Amino acid sequence: MPLPIDFYFDFSSPYAYLGSRLIGPVAKKHGREVRWHPFMLGVAMKGEKTFPLTQYPLKGDYSRMDFDRTARRHNIPFNMPVDFPKVTLAASRGFLWIAVNDQPTAIAFAQKIFQAYFVDNRDISDPELVAGIAEEVGIDKSAFLEAIQSPTVKEAFKASVEEIVSGKKVFGAPYFVVDGEAFWGADRVGQLDDWLTEGGW
Amino acid sequence: MPLPIDFYFDFSSPYAYLGSRLIGPVAKKHGREVRWHPFMLGVAMKGEKTFPLTQYPLKGDYSRMDFDRTARRHNIPFNMPVDFPKVTLAASRGFLWIAVNDQPTAIAFAQKIFQAYFVDNRDISDPELVAGIAEEVGIDKSAFLEAIQSPTVKEAFKASVEEIVSGKKVFGAPYFVVDGEAFWGADRVGQLDDWLTEGGW
Repeated sequence: MPLPIDFYFDFSSPYAYLGSRLIGPVAKKHGREVRWHPFMLGVAMKGEKTFPLTQYPLKGDYSRMDFDRTARRHNIPFNMPVDFPKVTLAASRGFLWIAVNDQPTAIAFAQKIFQAYFVDNRDISDPELVAGIAEEVGIDKSAFLEAIQSPTVKEAFKASVEEIVSGKKVFGAPYFVVDGEAFWGADRVGQLDDWLTEGGW
Repeated sequence: MPLPIDFYFDFSSPYAYLGSRLIGPVAKKHGREVRWHPFMLGVAMKGEKTFPLTQYPLKGDYSRMDFDRTARRHNIPFNMPVDFPKVTLAASRGFLWIAVNDQPTAIAFAQKIFQAYFVDNRDISDPELVAGIAEEVGIDKSAFLEAIQSPTVKEAFKASVEEIVSGKKVFGAPYFVVDGEAFWGADRVGQLDDWLTEGGW
């Protein structure tokens, strides 16, 4: 059984959303599973002394143009949220809690969160809204709201972010690792595809 | 006659070197000329509050890995200089001075500068070495050394950098513009190729 593709993301990252739409078909083509790992990009940025892309004077404008262009390139629905970025603790903790027992349901939940933010421009920092989305994939809403406030889940997510940033050295999103090889950026999914096809170079 | 591809670069940028090797064949395929424009990435970085890639704690290590991997991918000779980055005023001013009368010779000179730094790891901040390379493409060495110290050439280059960063809004390298469309990064040359093939999307 070939190793899975690890996919590190922040629910608030436009390129992570785009990457989430691109990695699925590539993984399928190569018979690989995708393991989703939400983290807090802000924690990585603090250590790197970097900022959300849109906050850079020139790179910010280019990025906004490029989010749209990349989405059009791949026919991915995309509407840049006006209120950006968002702190997405509720969704991230919720993902972790769902994934303990049921990774596929957690992924379906994550896809809906991305859609809510980057297509429908809903406020994914709102725990009530996030819990409503969890309900759509069959999760009990009040159990979800309780879980994301529990010290156990909070601690587990904090430890996971720490491991991703300090342990795995993930500094941006989307960040993919397959067979020990790291690829950063939605625009590197094609290269990851080539890497798996050719067995590296 | 189709418009040329504008290629903005800093002689000290590994990705600009890699981009310089990738853009040629793509331009040729589409019957486009490449216009080379050296600038000072440091000036753009100051405004953006960004730093040379290798200076970021985590992104720095990833970048070093990725310079090599990108070079291997495209069979481009590459040896990361230990002494990095370099201030490349002599080469940039020299390019501008040569290009006034002879753009093809200026490009041949630029290609040799890139080779000197990123293959042979020579000190391209040294005006003597740079003038020696100019000589290899048929330029008079003492005239070159005199030109790069002349107030006219110094001012012209300063104005050109100002126009590139403030006017054209170039914040990184390599940065390509074709038919009004901007593409940032050596890894976007493939997308630029697709853009020209498909006439945009």
